[in-house]
Amino acid sequence: MNETTAAALFSGNRTTLAPYRAEHFGWSVEGKVGTITLNRPERKNPLTFESYAELRDLFRQLAYSTDVKSVVIHGAGGNFCSGGDVHDIIAPLVDLPMPELLMFTRMTGDLVKAMRHCPQPVIAAVDGVCAGAGAIMAMASDLRFGTARSKLAFLFTRVGLAGCDMGACALLPRIIGQGRAADLLFTGRSASGEEAHAWGFYNRLCEPDEVVKDAQTLAAELASGPTFAHGITKKMLHQEWNMGIDEAIESEAQAQAICMATQDFGRAYRAFAAKARPVFEGD
Amino acid sequence: MNETTAAALFSGNRTTLAPYRAEHFGWSVEGKVGTITLNRPERKNPLTFESYAELRDLFRQLAYSTDVKSVVIHGAGGNFCSGGDVHDIIAPLVDLPMPELLMFTRMTGDLVKAMRHCPQPVIAAVDGVCAGAGAIMAMASDLRFGTARSKLAFLFTRVGLAGCDMGACALLPRIIGQGRAADLLFTGRSASGEEAHAWGFYNRLCEPDEVVKDAQTLAAELASGPTFAHGITKKMLHQEWNMGIDEAIESEAQAQAICMATQDFGRAYRAFAAKARPVFEGD
Amino acid sequence: MNETTAAALFSGNRTTLAPYRAEHFGWSVEGKVGTITLNRPERKNPLTFESYAELRDLFRQLAYSTDVKSVVIHGAGGNFCSGGDVHDIIAPLVDLPMPELLMFTRMTGDLVKAMRHCPQPVIAAVDGVCAGAGAIMAMASDLRFGTARSKLAFLFTRVGLAGCDMGACALLPRIIGQGRAADLLFTGRSASGEEAHAWGFYNRLCEPDEVVKDAQTLAAELASGPTFAHGITKKMLHQEWNMGIDEAIESEAQAQAICMATQDFGRAYRAFAAKARPVFEGD
Repeated sequence: MNETTAAALFSGNRTTLAPYRAEHFGWSVEGKVGTITLNRPERKNPLTFESYAELRDLFRQLAYSTDVKSVVIHGAGGNFCSGGDVHDIIAPLVDLPMPELLMFTRMTGDLVKAMRHCPQPVIAAVDGVCAGAGAIMAMASDLRFGTARSKLAFLFTRVGLAGCDMGACALLPRIIGQGRAADLLFTGRSASGEEAHAWGFYNRLCEPDEVVKDAQTLAAELASGPTFAHGITKKMLHQEWNMGIDEAIESEAQAQAICMATQDFGRAYRAFAAKARPVFEGD
Repeated sequence: MNETTAAALFSGNRTTLAPYRAEHFGWSVEGKVGTITLNRPERKNPLTFESYAELRDLFRQLAYSTDVKSVVIHGAGGNFCSGGDVHDIIAPLVDLPMPELLMFTRMTGDLVKAMRHCPQPVIAAVDGVCAGAGAIMAMASDLRFGTARSKLAFLFTRVGLAGCDMGACALLPRIIGQGRAADLLFTGRSASGEEAHAWGFYNRLCEPDEVVKDAQTLAAELASGPTFAHGITKKMLHQEWNMGIDEAIESEAQAQAICMATQDFGRAYRAFAAKARPVFEGD
Repeated sequence: MNETTAAALFSGNRTTLAPYRAEHFGWSVEGKVGTITLNRPERKNPLTFESYAELRDLFRQLAYSTDVKSVVIHGAGGNFCSGGDVHDIIAPLVDLPMPELLMFTRMTGDLVKAMRHCPQPVIAAVDGVCAGAGAIMAMASDLRFGTARSKLAFLFTRVGLAGCDMGACALLPRIIGQGRAADLLFTGRSASGEEAHAWGFYNRLCEPDEVVKDAQTLAAELASGPTFAHGITKKMLHQEWNMGIDEAIESEAQAQAICMATQDFGRAYRAFAAKARPVFEGD
């Protein structure tokens, strides 16, 4: 393959997301950090069919982004997200035929898949209400910063549904333990910020007016790190989910060997030898 | 299939358990909540071959129950269960030929399978001694309420056996973490109520004289909820145990679409629209 | 097969490790407890190609050991292990061709596999720095005792690599939860002894001058227990890692039936009946 062909091949696989203008939520890029702001604060930032789809598409695009190296997701006005909008989503769902119900549940699941498949670490900055599909988006992030006053609720049971929404029965037990997950999924009760932190759902409790900034600070640190390697870390956490230990170890031997062939590995060693701080470039 | 055939078909699949009289433990049904009372308090409620088998059969019947929608299991006289009776079980096991040993270990495992396969949430109310097969039954429940004075011990190692009993090496690590599970399974030591609560084994610590009532109160709440959906939550927590994340998300898309086609989902929406409390009927 | 043949067959499968003299670390056997001492304290006990390989080989030999029934691993001079030596390992790796990189990552992975496949419970006694491959060895142990001042860091990201090293993306999430593991693996930050204990990484926090002794005390207790059964516990924790629950229960039914056919099970019962303390012999 000559160089022109390769360039053509890859141009379809590369995109810059700083210029992107989101329709159904806020999107901004500062440095290498993209920030998603769920911004219907008067209703505690519920999701609609449109915002679900656009979030899914944005996370899918992030797989090819050359400029965004980490992502923060948060909500405007002191709440994270109240879940699927009762009027815009629940109402029409009640009357849909089965094929369309499945089309909807697959679309919501595709959002989680897209969040898990993009290479960027995603940090949820959670304040206030974090419920239903909002709790799912927080769960589907890589890291979570919360506030003491935040309220986490997988309240699907309250609307007559099961706790198995968008991967919750798989993901939540691995984050907080099987027994605690069963409690939240069967009862739909709210967990306080302190509880969720003690259980490992939140990585850190922050002040309400600092949680977004704190998340962006860590996101910027990660974005200035070995971002190719971060993408491999994220991919292997995904891949090894249901592997046996021996198979996981072989998979990691291969994945880490790939990382040892990157420039960032050499950069880190030379910086160490020179008693300097390494400058990573993600290649 | 005409209506008569369908009725005939399903009659074998449906049963009411309120009238059931248990031989080897207590069984009572109040409202939609079934309560199992291990009732040999003078020996701390050990299990016998007969009580194992009857528990297994009752949990298998619960899969077809039309009247019982949640289950509480507890022990009489301030202890949960001391495990397999040393005289009635351990003594004969020592001399059994291999095929009969395997028949026994499969029967005990079948009890756990039956607890995991019935659609009802099972809440263990644990006070005092909770050891051996008793610890297993608590572990195999969906939710666990404990007391500060309760003592949890997987003491198989103390009788010369391995920690891998009735699923413990699979289930316990997912509830309390792999390292803590290894500690309890290798050493057979007792965990205090506070420890077990901090680790997520217990969902709540209760007063000794309230733990059964507290468990029954939550069981009644769950039984008045969307019980079909609860059964799906329980089934998916089971099914997704060793699925990959992507496969789990597709499985949940299908399972939740099923729930969106139930009457309870519509009931919840209409109650919300009318600013009323939904009355779920489990269909 | 006559007796001589059987003896010949098994002689290759049996070894005593008390006489073993290690070249690249300390090795001593007291009673039935083997102790590994990483002993380059002036550099915080880093690993070299040679010590990696010798550790791997020793753990592989432990599978056939007749004298060592549990293992303690610790570091000399107040630190556990600083990971792969920057000069001896990182420097040459930077220039290796891919096949040799993979040969290296597979060798390090083989150490973890050997630690998981030997039947002896391995207890890591962790003080001071526990970083990189040192953190992996602690993670790959069955039990971990730490100190408040210990510092646990999966710092692969700091040298431009991914967190997926020697099984970390599989093992660590099951020990401390998926969210906390992601934090440590993406950021490379240090976890304090208190944090790591609260998360279930350490089973116990000990005083710095007692942590090795405490680990050896527990190791001796385990070594005087039903060691064949301990090996089965360890094996089943490994085997059931990615089994479904039903399959795990059947596997345990078989594994526990094997243990019920051992002499140790009978010894425990007869001791109980005689109100004596059982003396286990591991057969």
